[in-house]
Amino acid sequence: MKKIILPLLIITFFFNQALAQKPRARDLGIPFDGTPGKFNAITDVPGIEVGYKTLIEGNGKLIRGKGPVRTGVTAIFPKGKSSLERVFAAWFTLNGNGEMTGTTWVDESGCLGSPILITNTHSVGVVRDAVIEWYMKKLNSNDYSGDISLPVVAETWDGFLNDINGFHVKKEHVFEAMEGAAGGPLKEGNVGGGTGMIVHQFKGGTGTSSRKLDQKSGGYTAGVLVQANYGSRGLLSIAGVPVGKEITDLMPLNKEDKDQGSIIVVFATDAPLLPHQLERIAKRISLGIGVMGGRGGNSSGDIFIAFSTANPEVSREDGIAHLEMLPNEMINPLFEAAVSATEEAIVNAMIAAESMEGVNGNKVYAIPHDRLIQVMKKYNRIK
Amino acid sequence: MKKIILPLLIITFFFNQALAQKPRARDLGIPFDGTPGKFNAITDVPGIEVGYKTLIEGNGKLIRGKGPVRTGVTAIFPKGKSSLERVFAAWFTLNGNGEMTGTTWVDESGCLGSPILITNTHSVGVVRDAVIEWYMKKLNSNDYSGDISLPVVAETWDGFLNDINGFHVKKEHVFEAMEGAAGGPLKEGNVGGGTGMIVHQFKGGTGTSSRKLDQKSGGYTAGVLVQANYGSRGLLSIAGVPVGKEITDLMPLNKEDKDQGSIIVVFATDAPLLPHQLERIAKRISLGIGVMGGRGGNSSGDIFIAFSTANPEVSREDGIAHLEMLPNEMINPLFEAAVSATEEAIVNAMIAAESMEGVNGNKVYAIPHDRLIQVMKKYNRIK
Amino acid sequence: MKKIILPLLIITFFFNQALAQKPRARDLGIPFDGTPGKFNAITDVPGIEVGYKTLIEGNGKLIRGKGPVRTGVTAIFPKGKSSLERVFAAWFTLNGNGEMTGTTWVDESGCLGSPILITNTHSVGVVRDAVIEWYMKKLNSNDYSGDISLPVVAETWDGFLNDINGFHVKKEHVFEAMEGAAGGPLKEGNVGGGTGMIVHQFKGGTGTSSRKLDQKSGGYTAGVLVQANYGSRGLLSIAGVPVGKEITDLMPLNKEDKDQGSIIVVFATDAPLLPHQLERIAKRISLGIGVMGGRGGNSSGDIFIAFSTANPEVSREDGIAHLEMLPNEMINPLFEAAVSATEEAIVNAMIAAESMEGVNGNKVYAIPHDRLIQVMKKYNRIK
Amino acid sequence: MKKIILPLLIITFFFNQALAQKPRARDLGIPFDGTPGKFNAITDVPGIEVGYKTLIEGNGKLIRGKGPVRTGVTAIFPKGKSSLERVFAAWFTLNGNGEMTGTTWVDESGCLGSPILITNTHSVGVVRDAVIEWYMKKLNSNDYSGDISLPVVAETWDGFLNDINGFHVKKEHVFEAMEGAAGGPLKEGNVGGGTGMIVHQFKGGTGTSSRKLDQKSGGYTAGVLVQANYGSRGLLSIAGVPVGKEITDLMPLNKEDKDQGSIIVVFATDAPLLPHQLERIAKRISLGIGVMGGRGGNSSGDIFIAFSTANPEVSREDGIAHLEMLPNEMINPLFEAAVSATEEAIVNAMIAAESMEGVNGNKVYAIPHDRLIQVMKKYNRIK
Repeated sequence: MKKIILPLLIITFFFNQALAQKPRARDLGIPFDGTPGKFNAITDVPGIEVGYKTLIEGNGKLIRGKGPVRTGVTAIFPKGKSSLERVFAAWFTLNGNGEMTGTTWVDESGCLGSPILITNTHSVGVVRDAVIEWYMKKLNSNDYSGDISLPVVAETWDGFLNDINGFHVKKEHVFEAMEGAAGGPLKEGNVGGGTGMIVHQFKGGTGTSSRKLDQKSGGYTAGVLVQANYGSRGLLSIAGVPVGKEITDLMPLNKEDKDQGSIIVVFATDAPLLPHQLERIAKRISLGIGVMGGRGGNSSGDIFIAFSTANPEVSREDGIAHLEMLPNEMINPLFEAAVSATEEAIVNAMIAAESMEGVNGNKVYAIPHDRLIQVMKKYNRIK
Repeated sequence: MKKIILPLLIITFFFNQALAQKPRARDLGIPFDGTPGKFNAITDVPGIEVGYKTLIEGNGKLIRGKGPVRTGVTAIFPKGKSSLERVFAAWFTLNGNGEMTGTTWVDESGCLGSPILITNTHSVGVVRDAVIEWYMKKLNSNDYSGDISLPVVAETWDGFLNDINGFHVKKEHVFEAMEGAAGGPLKEGNVGGGTGMIVHQFKGGTGTSSRKLDQKSGGYTAGVLVQANYGSRGLLSIAGVPVGKEITDLMPLNKEDKDQGSIIVVFATDAPLLPHQLERIAKRISLGIGVMGGRGGNSSGDIFIAFSTANPEVSREDGIAHLEMLPNEMINPLFEAAVSATEEAIVNAMIAAESMEGVNGNKVYAIPHDRLIQVMKKYNRIK
Repeated sequence: MKKIILPLLIITFFFNQALAQKPRARDLGIPFDGTPGKFNAITDVPGIEVGYKTLIEGNGKLIRGKGPVRTGVTAIFPKGKSSLERVFAAWFTLNGNGEMTGTTWVDESGCLGSPILITNTHSVGVVRDAVIEWYMKKLNSNDYSGDISLPVVAETWDGFLNDINGFHVKKEHVFEAMEGAAGGPLKEGNVGGGTGMIVHQFKGGTGTSSRKLDQKSGGYTAGVLVQANYGSRGLLSIAGVPVGKEITDLMPLNKEDKDQGSIIVVFATDAPLLPHQLERIAKRISLGIGVMGGRGGNSSGDIFIAFSTANPEVSREDGIAHLEMLPNEMINPLFEAAVSATEEAIVNAMIAAESMEGVNGNKVYAIPHDRLIQVMKKYNRIK
Repeated sequence: MKKIILPLLIITFFFNQALAQKPRARDLGIPFDGTPGKFNAITDVPGIEVGYKTLIEGNGKLIRGKGPVRTGVTAIFPKGKSSLERVFAAWFTLNGNGEMTGTTWVDESGCLGSPILITNTHSVGVVRDAVIEWYMKKLNSNDYSGDISLPVVAETWDGFLNDINGFHVKKEHVFEAMEGAAGGPLKEGNVGGGTGMIVHQFKGGTGTSSRKLDQKSGGYTAGVLVQANYGSRGLLSIAGVPVGKEITDLMPLNKEDKDQGSIIVVFATDAPLLPHQLERIAKRISLGIGVMGGRGGNSSGDIFIAFSTANPEVSREDGIAHLEMLPNEMINPLFEAAVSATEEAIVNAMIAAESMEGVNGNKVYAIPHDRLIQVMKKYNRIK
């Protein structure tokens, strides 16, 4: 295996300062149902930590193995990077032209014992094995554990901008994303696994959002993180407004107009939901993509995972675990939160993303904020 | 058990003449994606026949077993009522608080060998056995046939308007709906199984719509029939416009404001889709409900079945069947048709339905056409 | 609709006295893994009550609507017939050429709120609506409840012996089976829904068995009840011995040699399993059928439901439910119990069943105990 | 087969000569249902090619990253290694404590577009990305293709014998297994991905078997390849004989007596089955494991994939594909073939495997042929 990481070539962007100034969808006045949490991010769910590694390097003609590179890794720890606790989890697929490893064990066990990693399509393998290696080094164990040996790693395709067949993601990048995971406000747009993504033929990427339920509904928090890379322009709808029919220019250079790409959605809550209830949540995430104009196109990998950080005894192996469950009769506010937070996280990804040029001069434009506001006004959705 | 069928009491409404004059959603100017077929009905798919039996009887106080009665039966024959041919089929559930019998065999065999019946929740049994009896009389056979012995019967709840525990649907009503099945234009609103239904807290019922694909996409027809009985007012969205937040009066008398009820959706096409592809279609129907503001609420039975009338050799039992398949790479237009035709069929059900009073003076209002148009104009969706 | 209950024609068999003398599989020396509970019946799980209505009437030529009648109804109440409590539940299909109503809501909610009824294929409807009517009379409520309005009713085909198209099961028979439900030892063989059944081309029917886990495994009880009606002779294997290849005579008169028919299996435990864990159990039931020589033949409806009577707060609707869960790491003994108790319940059904003649002189032979013992000795499985 | 890397360190066993002399299960007289094909191997299905890379290196104390190494890679090409054709496919899980990548797209598309690779648990990632790299080099394309970018890679755990956390499988080993794929007779036992495996606490590994249907059943061929690594001793049953209760010694040194490990089963046929029919087949594979005494234990990853090499137009993307389908009514012989060929392939893996010592002196014994025959005779299954 050859040496890889040349710090002068691999540029990791730090948006920490910029973050404060960048507007998000709500800042532009776009209306969404529900009330967000403090950061309007998946990290509003207590304990969740997110880390990114962003790889942007080179310009111009594609030379396989050299670049240009526009990719990255996102790591989401349900209980923080120092915890080995399991959480209840479930997943759902709207369209399955994609990969999320580890889901067979999630289905069977009802649990998620690993972090969730998201990267580009051709780097799922290296990321998967790296997650195992990271834990094995920490634990110095040789016993089998489904939690650690079957990690959840998902992907979306960035080959329009990135030298995806150059396999630029290395295990050290994975370790960096994992080690760097933290709570608090999150960067959005061209970061982590979302770096080279395209959504409704505008620049896409990583986005997040959260909902805080009122006390009558239990006061729970629900958060969503998306790696958005799907959709055709013509169907793009924001807050019910047919934006894609109004802004028909600024199409990607050199790209067909069809619903391709993918979207990975991670949903988290501190409400005490059992696995079969989390599956219900995961299924509703489809509806959030539907209201945006996603149709689960044939070449799209629209895969969603939902987990609950409640119920610490889920990890108990040697005796009866004591659990709490939110009754099905009280679940509707979480269904609505899942839909509207997914919608908002996608729009947040679009609003934060910046235009990007990648391999062979391929270029994807960010949605222009001023024109978006104009269109929203035309349809009376922003005053 | 007492005698029931007094022709003076059981009034079957015939809207045939009225049908021509009643406006549908497109007549009001509401915009939908896609091009409808000749009748804008599921019967645009060649061979499909639909029959209704509508039961409306009595007024005033609920006396179990006496009425008032507001219910009915809908029968959909994929190949017409004289055919015993199977079709490829698949189904999907957005929220499973409902019944659709026969689906276990649909899943296993990939086929649908019976008509699809829709009625109220407490009459699924009588309808199911009646379908078997209807065929057994015709065939005079005593052999087992999964096609006939495991019919598909679905339901939504009409107990807010109907004496549902009076069990007013009898096997003779089922036979009537089946014998009366025909092609051509279809009645909508308060007819058949949809008679006593409520959608987004306006009067709901039966609705239909179709899409004709362009020649580039194969020129196929897709049709949808819904029995719509779901949704809360606040989330109602029509063509992206937040109608439910604008028309907040005209709420049902004596009813809580929550997302309950159910929706059954039947999707048909003459495109040659295999069972696993029809399952993909059925899953997308959720998105049509999502754009209307449905969230698959906990007490809702949102169950969808999709079938293809292509491939007559599906029925072959004694040797290799020769089939055609539309490649997955060409399926996206059917995904989009499924979503927009579902949306339009729901709105058609609402537009056609008329205000209805049922048991104990419970009343549900039809959505007022003039106010709907006003709201659509406010949001610039009707000029 | 004609009058039904003519005591001279409808003969209900009471095996109560006979029960004590009838040998069961273990009495013959057939070896099974695991230790049974007190009654070696599903009723060993505390709280479970089972009721039968057996309909045997007439002989000779089949006259549709007259008979001969060889059918019935079985009712299984997870918490007894007076309880309205829900239990966690899940289901699985080995081969889906059959019906089990109510399963869509079991899947979605993770719960079972109704009893489980089993009857013949063409009487599922009448039984389903009767269960609703029974509860509605008791409760005198008109509100919707998925628990009551979506009951679980399953079936297997008895048309080889029974005038199945005569629709002889009436709602009063259902009420009788339900009202008569009780705990304690259970009749097996030609009783209840299992009256007219055939298994591996011997006489089949209703069978039951249980397992008591040792204290190290939690001391839980698991019970199984089967309505066994599946399988071809050649593949019949009992305790690993190829019985079907040894006893090749005593074939049903007038019947083809193929793996048809069906099997319904109900699994119950007081171990605190969550819905996703009960689905794991339900899936393993297939293995019990597999070791008997069942292959899930195309015309078979092999449908299994599993529930746990633990966790009374499953029924709570208005606030957090407090639950217990057996860790996945401790579930293996229940997997093994599910497999071996299914195997034993099937053999018990065969051992208890008596030869039966039905419509048109069609006849099915009970497996002869003496010859079975001989074969077991030949293969050294009985000393 | 070409020379391999570092002959002194990486020892690849060549059984080619030995193969002819090594007995298989049928050679010992063990009875199985059905008639095998020419090689009694998955390669009896025309077009299938299988390649192995076996890594055996070092002895003694485990030093992570150094060894000892007891692992490998198996590659199965449905249409041969030079073909890019898709096949119809489906998969099923008995117990999901395992990984098989690419299955989400298999589910959605009904197709398999990649070879199937099997390795150890911690090497799934490197194998997955290597498969993509192998194709990308061949094709020199940068377009997205779900067929190539979402390959199917499965695993079982060999950490009891192998330095699994040393990550010894490298992409070059994957290329070797792929390049070396060929038809004809296959090595079994300690080869390829099966090198370090344990089955029912005897030495396990790779096994294969096939069935040739009679002309009445269509004359089709069905083949199975297993990587067997599951099961507890006590439940081991061969041809119905309780072998595990008879041979209770020769237990692995240093290992608990529980049903852990996993089994990957690949089923292939040239019968024209559609995806939903292949799912039916995959589900029946469970029964083959069940008759051996597998119970899908909690720590087991029992994952099965089935494909059909018929229907070359499955790969068509730009117009209607013309297909053939075996009717469901004719599928039973393939169900029986799937069960008995799975059973035989597992026993073949056991019979071919040789005792192996791995890390830290851990040792697993091969089942002794002479004692197995004795036990079979005791129970009158071998004369």
